[in-house]
Amino acid sequence: MAIKEALRPGGRSARVQESIHTAVRELLEEQERSTLTVPQIATRAGVTPSTIYRRWGDLSALLADVALARMRPDSEPANTGSLRGDLRAWAEQYLDEMSSEPGRNMMRDVQSSATPGYCVTILSAQLQTILERYRDSEEPLPDIDRLLNLIVAPTVFRILFSATPLSVPELHALIELALLP
Amino acid sequence: MAIKEALRPGGRSARVQESIHTAVRELLEEQERSTLTVPQIATRAGVTPSTIYRRWGDLSALLADVALARMRPDSEPANTGSLRGDLRAWAEQYLDEMSSEPGRNMMRDVQSSATPGYCVTILSAQLQTILERYRDSEEPLPDIDRLLNLIVAPTVFRILFSATPLSVPELHALIELALLP
Repeated sequence: MAIKEALRPGGRSARVQESIHTAVRELLEEQERSTLTVPQIATRAGVTPSTIYRRWGDLSALLADVALARMRPDSEPANTGSLRGDLRAWAEQYLDEMSSEPGRNMMRDVQSSATPGYCVTILSAQLQTILERYRDSEEPLPDIDRLLNLIVAPTVFRILFSATPLSVPELHALIELALLP
Repeated sequence: MAIKEALRPGGRSARVQESIHTAVRELLEEQERSTLTVPQIATRAGVTPSTIYRRWGDLSALLADVALARMRPDSEPANTGSLRGDLRAWAEQYLDEMSSEPGRNMMRDVQSSATPGYCVTILSAQLQTILERYRDSEEPLPDIDRLLNLIVAPTVFRILFSATPLSVPELHALIELALLP
């Protein structure tokens, strides 16, 4: 899967992916995203269109992948020493990124891609990384679905459907709720 | 505003709106939604395109309005005699409607419309209707934002970004959380 490969650089497959990502980034600087096509990206990257279709399924999934790779290099969620602190740091960064223009575009791309579940998989992995750190603590840990429902969902919903995104205090209140036993 | 007028039938403005809604519904049965245009709708409805642009801003807002009018006739949220019961009935219906193909299309239309906040306004009004019924009860009432964040947001998020929508038990658990003092 594309994301896994991005985390394991090297190898032919990773180089092909990198050239396709680069082609997308370059083309997006030169033209409107609505005019971008798969054959065009393939030509720029020196691959066949079917290489792109085989790997991503459609243009939206590729754009979503590029946007994700761009926004989250390969850093782990910040480790602040407490679960509350880690969740706050992670959620504030997520709110920030998703409220930005590339974040909004990414959410649009992901929705119209063939595999919108893709996004939840990545978010879940990040939240899992945080939870693993506190696996031996005495407090009961929230499960991933609870974190997705109470922290991620309101963040995304407000950005997509409301005039104003969540405020940081609202975000913190939701985290408290998620941390309730 | 279009929705207000839909609730106050009669009058020239309401008749114009009804003929435009009807035109959209008819055209959607005859052709793909992606090929629909404002001038085409205007011709069918016997109005000028500027009437449509003035009232809805763009095609997406009009499509969202038609979808909403279609899905929620003019019934109030069910009154079951308890806040918990009303919220469950409302949230289950909302989950049902939004998981359907017209519901998904509506969410897509609303997002690309000029006024995505539109949707939250309507949802808030419905939730307000429910809360008003229990205004004199002794239990503290949740506020609208809490209901939007804890019930509506996860419902929408899971439909848009996950392979499976929320289950009814998950929805009930979220309602319990929203009802915590």
